[in-house]
Amino acid sequence: MGSYLPRSTKVGILGGGQLGKMLAQEASRFDVDLSFLDPSASCPVSKISPSFTCGDFNQYDDVLNFGRPMNVVSVEIEHVNVEALRQLEREGVRVYPQPEVLSLIQDKGLQKQFYRKHGLPTADFDLFDGKSSLRSAIGSNAFDFPFVVKLRKGGYDGRGVFIISRPEQLGQVPDVPVLVESMAAIDKEIAVIVARDRSGNATAYSPVSMEFHPEANLVEDILCPAEIPPTAAESATHIALKAAEHLGVTGLLAVEMFFNKDGSLWINEMAPRPHNSGHLTLNNGAASQFENHLRILCDLPLGSGTWKLHSMMVNLLGEPGHEGLAVYHGLDEILTLPGVHLYLYGKDQTRPHRKMGHINITGDSAESCRQTASAIRKKIKITT
Amino acid sequence: MGSYLPRSTKVGILGGGQLGKMLAQEASRFDVDLSFLDPSASCPVSKISPSFTCGDFNQYDDVLNFGRPMNVVSVEIEHVNVEALRQLEREGVRVYPQPEVLSLIQDKGLQKQFYRKHGLPTADFDLFDGKSSLRSAIGSNAFDFPFVVKLRKGGYDGRGVFIISRPEQLGQVPDVPVLVESMAAIDKEIAVIVARDRSGNATAYSPVSMEFHPEANLVEDILCPAEIPPTAAESATHIALKAAEHLGVTGLLAVEMFFNKDGSLWINEMAPRPHNSGHLTLNNGAASQFENHLRILCDLPLGSGTWKLHSMMVNLLGEPGHEGLAVYHGLDEILTLPGVHLYLYGKDQTRPHRKMGHINITGDSAESCRQTASAIRKKIKITT
Repeated sequence: MGSYLPRSTKVGILGGGQLGKMLAQEASRFDVDLSFLDPSASCPVSKISPSFTCGDFNQYDDVLNFGRPMNVVSVEIEHVNVEALRQLEREGVRVYPQPEVLSLIQDKGLQKQFYRKHGLPTADFDLFDGKSSLRSAIGSNAFDFPFVVKLRKGGYDGRGVFIISRPEQLGQVPDVPVLVESMAAIDKEIAVIVARDRSGNATAYSPVSMEFHPEANLVEDILCPAEIPPTAAESATHIALKAAEHLGVTGLLAVEMFFNKDGSLWINEMAPRPHNSGHLTLNNGAASQFENHLRILCDLPLGSGTWKLHSMMVNLLGEPGHEGLAVYHGLDEILTLPGVHLYLYGKDQTRPHRKMGHINITGDSAESCRQTASAIRKKIKITT
Repeated sequence: MGSYLPRSTKVGILGGGQLGKMLAQEASRFDVDLSFLDPSASCPVSKISPSFTCGDFNQYDDVLNFGRPMNVVSVEIEHVNVEALRQLEREGVRVYPQPEVLSLIQDKGLQKQFYRKHGLPTADFDLFDGKSSLRSAIGSNAFDFPFVVKLRKGGYDGRGVFIISRPEQLGQVPDVPVLVESMAAIDKEIAVIVARDRSGNATAYSPVSMEFHPEANLVEDILCPAEIPPTAAESATHIALKAAEHLGVTGLLAVEMFFNKDGSLWINEMAPRPHNSGHLTLNNGAASQFENHLRILCDLPLGSGTWKLHSMMVNLLGEPGHEGLAVYHGLDEILTLPGVHLYLYGKDQTRPHRKMGHINITGDSAESCRQTASAIRKKIKITT
């Protein structure tokens, strides 16, 4: 494109959560005409966007009516009505990520088959249509305890994942299609985000390492660059780029991986959208993941994902035992620290371990970021 | 403040231009309830804010009606109706910067008297109530040519400033109150932005140097850190902090200074709001000027203004000879350069030398920033 006419592309986003909110902030820098659809009238985007529609992105008609006036439709969540997106595509609306990518991602079983088909490393697995077939496989000692059972559909943030160490524990697993995975011997969990445009140009952000909240089963910290050997970082980047290419995705692809104790890398799962693990790209000197998502939707060239400052992200989670109007404690003590960038998502109500915001920390070293992060964790509490 | 309740403070801003737009972007990170008043229904803020009121910030009633429901009222432009702000203060609305600060700033004559009174260095000057008194002073050779005549009120971006080398040139000067200044022998023009909170805590951003557009009489480039000797940078910071303290301003104060060939520093003028010279604080690792403005309004502690990355800002100005719907050329060629952060202001119409946006450049050295900046100037054109 030789010339750019702002607001000439009408972009519609399914989902109005924090990812949509951060996308809107970047869109305003590019003067993009951006609209959102979300079922919650008080979602984060509703507070900041003049073009918010309240509707259900899982309802065929809501998605169709929202998408028809748009030139491009995209998502900030993968659990959306794909049939409506297929219809919009037939009607000439560009849909990124493509509907076929979304339906593959919506089914963890199809994801695993995709990895196997393309020789992308992942934990060994089997698929089961329900509990009886699963029980009989276990009865015939098909796998060693402990192993992992994942619901093929609907799980997120660790929900729908069960670690089974004894047969009795199968009780917790609902009678739906599942996949069974062997346990990884994990050294670090990492993620690589790839941005891939309509022409197939792709760029990968530096791998980041993730540290998990002991109880919440949620990412608590993200560190960039990832604390893994350089050769592992190269392989991880290569794997993520290959996954995006085989998938043929237009848009972002966040690839979560296990860096195992034996030095091997396994893909855990993928998300075709901006990702929690990429928030620190807002402050570390790169073109942010949200900016590159937007550039792809508007047919602008991809920006550099190279980080310039060491960075760390700390999720701000609702305090256990508190449910109701959110109050933030201790902010004043940490806002004076250098390199601290606060992002509140605008969720009125807090709940135990709810993602209420995050803080990006930038510094000259991983160590200085870690020190600030531990100060933040000590001081900030989100209660009612 | 020990605890922070988002949206508990209703903040109203007079002005909905690019400064307001960038303030809104930062406000969304803090989940602040922010409203704007601007006479133009298509101003930059109108496109991105769900709480925009179309009205004239120079009209007493418009400002009063807009400000009454607010807890705090502030500005992104100094040319506003101060009487209405005084009334709002009497009614218990907090107004930052304070009305008395705004009325002093609105009159360049009062500004100069303020500098003189407090021993703040500035060019020698005289005040005249109109043209006849000015002519007679010149007749009696009160000053040497060339000298500078400035309208006391209403000038901005170089408008209302006249350089007089020959008596005939007085023809251009309207018959209104003016000030006459001796010409500075300028080495560099610099600026220091101070953020000062309600308790009088103040922090200063590193001095930046400004390079001007040859014809437009507008800042074209801003470089941080400023290219002046460290001792001059220290003195400039000290002068800016003293000016803010003597003014007693709550909010931001941008202090523009001349660094003269003889090594002396003179204050040129001040603006009590976010300033063009502070845009690069959005990407250089500091807490941005917009963020600190907001923190002051919401009674949050000041954030660190320390830069972490060399940075440079290039203004994107409308091409001469073009007036109408703006089209941006060459963006695709520069968006791929590392460390390039685009800010389009969302002004539909371009005009010769109109500020349409800016690009923040971050890099490891001033030199790398300069190289990117010259590539940008070569490639980007804003036409119709």
